[in-house]
Amino acid sequence: MEIAKTLGKYIPPVEQRIMEWIDGAAVAETLHKSMRYSMEAGGKRMRPSLLLATIESLGGNIDKGLDAAAAIEMVHTYSLIHDDLPSMDNDSLRRGKPTNHVVFGEATAILAGDALLTLAFQAIAHSTTLTNQQKVHLIGDLSSHAGSKGMVGGQMLDMEGEKQSLPLEKLQQVHELKTGKLLTFSIVAGAKIAEASEDTIKKLENFSYHLGIAFQIKDDILDVEGLEEVIGKSVGKDQSTEKSTYPSLLTLQGAKQKLQFHIRQAAELLEDYSGDNQVLLQLVEWVEKRDR
Amino acid sequence: MEIAKTLGKYIPPVEQRIMEWIDGAAVAETLHKSMRYSMEAGGKRMRPSLLLATIESLGGNIDKGLDAAAAIEMVHTYSLIHDDLPSMDNDSLRRGKPTNHVVFGEATAILAGDALLTLAFQAIAHSTTLTNQQKVHLIGDLSSHAGSKGMVGGQMLDMEGEKQSLPLEKLQQVHELKTGKLLTFSIVAGAKIAEASEDTIKKLENFSYHLGIAFQIKDDILDVEGLEEVIGKSVGKDQSTEKSTYPSLLTLQGAKQKLQFHIRQAAELLEDYSGDNQVLLQLVEWVEKRDR
Repeated sequence: MEIAKTLGKYIPPVEQRIMEWIDGAAVAETLHKSMRYSMEAGGKRMRPSLLLATIESLGGNIDKGLDAAAAIEMVHTYSLIHDDLPSMDNDSLRRGKPTNHVVFGEATAILAGDALLTLAFQAIAHSTTLTNQQKVHLIGDLSSHAGSKGMVGGQMLDMEGEKQSLPLEKLQQVHELKTGKLLTFSIVAGAKIAEASEDTIKKLENFSYHLGIAFQIKDDILDVEGLEEVIGKSVGKDQSTEKSTYPSLLTLQGAKQKLQFHIRQAAELLEDYSGDNQVLLQLVEWVEKRDR
Repeated sequence: MEIAKTLGKYIPPVEQRIMEWIDGAAVAETLHKSMRYSMEAGGKRMRPSLLLATIESLGGNIDKGLDAAAAIEMVHTYSLIHDDLPSMDNDSLRRGKPTNHVVFGEATAILAGDALLTLAFQAIAHSTTLTNQQKVHLIGDLSSHAGSKGMVGGQMLDMEGEKQSLPLEKLQQVHELKTGKLLTFSIVAGAKIAEASEDTIKKLENFSYHLGIAFQIKDDILDVEGLEEVIGKSVGKDQSTEKSTYPSLLTLQGAKQKLQFHIRQAAELLEDYSGDNQVLLQLVEWVEKRDR
């Protein structure tokens, strides 16, 4: 797919920057290995790629965004390590590989997550390419989007929701917090690094909102329709735990219609985009059509 | 003791500021309760008090440091929540109260820790009393002192060390990372907020180094000599797990001598202090003589 090639070019410089930060923060050998293990486990690198693509779409220099891009992927990866823990989602497989605690034990996995979260803020604070004002904005945004009013709050509500059937509104809140907030951060951070206007930032926030919901609906659909060997994690897990999903609340057909609605909203918001909207449009198409 | 009164005056404004940040970050009710529970569990509030005392000793305005003081206590508290987890130190009692995971369950305790760590950076980034430059310095310092090259790295080495006898040098490294780094941050952050000279900051770093080691030696001595009802946690735990401690490596007498050495070093560094050294001197005395 076109977008894989487009976004793919951002992956090597981001991965290199991530590893530079991790290697620079090494003291305890096993902890260092554990941090590298989960960061090297791959994944789509969607958040950092989105951040850099947004910078580029607005004519900015992607080198300025590499530390923030590294930071957002560290935050995402820490959240996966902690979410996979036995007391949380208890997942033993992630991206086709054993999860961090399976390899290194629970204690090390908890600490590796803690260390990656902490390093994310360090990477921004110690960046040599951002102004102090940008750093303060990015750290303020990242912390509020990743914390108890954002991703961590969403994970909490998600865990509580597993024990009961959630209404659609609540399900949407869970996803907006758990995954939407970091997506929005990625895109808005890119815009701020590229020094976009307030108006463009507002529009991109709105765009991210719809893209995030669409992404999650697609995830739920893939959980019903996807093949285990393609998506690299256990399929049908949501059904087996009686967790509310878009298909379970809306039927598969209804979920697909809702996906289309948010895809259209996102695409429309790009129509009078002040930059080059090509990459973001490809991204919308990818969210709609991806098979993993 | 004098210092309790001296540092005690800093506690109410710091606790109020901490609760303002936590209440402002509430979305998921149980998570919010869990965060408050551990923050309200009390403790000496030594780190934030140190930060504010340092500001005051240099003639600065303590109001400017309240967000950073709140942040450091959040980081300290998150580390206690995670360290107490069953897969880590497996402690069920902390400051005389059941630990977070005993009350709220492991998953919530992990998330409460994650959320407090994240909120610490937000408190500094969104502070209305610090300049952008100060925020960037403080966040850079806090993240490097709290992460894999600081507190988290120290906890990792400490866990690994429990399985074997450590040489003194290694034990000291563990403590310097696990507790010393955050103490140093507290004092240096206070100096930076008070806009102290480079020379004063260097001297305070050195002072914190000795104070931190002294504090830890005293902790180990109290573990041997202290009374459970006074210190509010299980006594003799170190011995029961065959963990290396200053008394186990140096004998109790040797540990007491080493304590005196670092106490003297710390006190000497305050002799030509550029500010009012009274509070810091009281602090040295407290570290030496505390019974909990």
